[in-house]
Amino acid sequence: LVITAQCDLIRVVLVSPRNPLNIGAAARAMANFGLSQLRVVAPYDPHWREAQSAVGAEDLLRRAETFRALDEAVTDCTLVIGTATIAQRKPEQPVVRLPDLSPYLEKAYAENASIAFVFGPEKHGLTREDLSYCHLLAEIPTDQRQPSMNLGQAVAVCLYEVSVRSSASVESAALPGLQLAKATSGDLDLLAEVIDRICVAADYSPRTMQEANRHDLRLLLRRFALNEPDARRALGFFRKILWRLEHPEPHTKPGNRPTEKC
Amino acid sequence: LVITAQCDLIRVVLVSPRNPLNIGAAARAMANFGLSQLRVVAPYDPHWREAQSAVGAEDLLRRAETFRALDEAVTDCTLVIGTATIAQRKPEQPVVRLPDLSPYLEKAYAENASIAFVFGPEKHGLTREDLSYCHLLAEIPTDQRQPSMNLGQAVAVCLYEVSVRSSASVESAALPGLQLAKATSGDLDLLAEVIDRICVAADYSPRTMQEANRHDLRLLLRRFALNEPDARRALGFFRKILWRLEHPEPHTKPGNRPTEKC
Repeated sequence: LVITAQCDLIRVVLVSPRNPLNIGAAARAMANFGLSQLRVVAPYDPHWREAQSAVGAEDLLRRAETFRALDEAVTDCTLVIGTATIAQRKPEQPVVRLPDLSPYLEKAYAENASIAFVFGPEKHGLTREDLSYCHLLAEIPTDQRQPSMNLGQAVAVCLYEVSVRSSASVESAALPGLQLAKATSGDLDLLAEVIDRICVAADYSPRTMQEANRHDLRLLLRRFALNEPDARRALGFFRKILWRLEHPEPHTKPGNRPTEKC
Repeated sequence: LVITAQCDLIRVVLVSPRNPLNIGAAARAMANFGLSQLRVVAPYDPHWREAQSAVGAEDLLRRAETFRALDEAVTDCTLVIGTATIAQRKPEQPVVRLPDLSPYLEKAYAENASIAFVFGPEKHGLTREDLSYCHLLAEIPTDQRQPSMNLGQAVAVCLYEVSVRSSASVESAALPGLQLAKATSGDLDLLAEVIDRICVAADYSPRTMQEANRHDLRLLLRRFALNEPDARRALGFFRKILWRLEHPEPHTKPGNRPTEKC
């Protein structure tokens, strides 16, 4: 069973859920498997907190946090796991079958990671843009003839797997600081923003390519598994470049440029 | 993923489900994990076949069989697995944690068993009488503070586990007859009925104890793991005894009894 340390490490993030009954069902499954941190991104129905389906999880639902966009909901997370069934398009990040996820979780627990489990909306699941904020994709191995799961049932299956197959090692979780903290999703977004502005300032690519570049950059930064000092150093470096690009030195006389002297 | 042979071995049995949405959700989860045989015992709502929640499983729901009682629904099954969460009363048969169920299933597949997964009604789960028809109880390891799962979610979690952690060996499933077939639930019920009548005919126990004796007998017969010839032989034996008890020989003269001659 999930132990306390582990519960605190995992957030469940629902992106644009349409049916409040599914949000309530997700909350109920969280309570069943000992989790407590629910985050809801842009819910469709303003009355979702009153979902009757959150049997025994009414408090959890009341305490759920809301966000306007996925990047805000995972900004403090260091391991963002998207979820999908086998039907969904070939994703651009590593795909792990849900029953094979435990080694990744064990590693994350040992690093005291903040983990987000992200579920897409009922109709179509996570979009390509949503997925670009995920470090990896957990695939529920459903039947090819009927791959699409109900949202509440998908949450229950994922949390069952997480709760039963892997457990946070109390020893390692109790010793933060022994390893360098991972960069959070927010750290990476800051870095991506600066690099994006550099691309614009340096006229790196045509305007029509900018959105595609941003997408690839998000994926690239998540593949690197940067730690927090890495991300901070890189941010300083790129900020400096940006500043230079945006504030070009006024043309100075050749005599003032020592490197060009000889 | 579940292979065809395996799908055909497993039936999902819902006992007295109240909410048609949960029946539909169970059907959807079955389709997600490649199962097709749904049996519904004494459903509360006559319109349950129209449940909107059976997305992609409408046919499966239409083809579901109905029964008046659990014993009828599992009569052709040789391994009946009840389901429960940790909260439920101490049961009288072996309890296996759901994540540890696969060796039992592998064995059953190898024996070409007919397996039933039995789920109780929403409010209170399977009754003590329901459980007396089960060979073992699969326990979903939920949090003690909020153990009770939604029915549709419980079905999804169980079928995920079954589909992912164990698979029927095609070779052994394709070779029936190498091992003796297990007695079905119906075989055991027949045997139990005859023994029960013997108890009455022999004036074995007071009338007030008869229901308790029947209950214990059901459990006992399921613990024995009888094969089909065992059950047939035992039935013949007990039928003979019953006939003798119910048709006592008229008092004959001592001279007609050869064993009393000398």
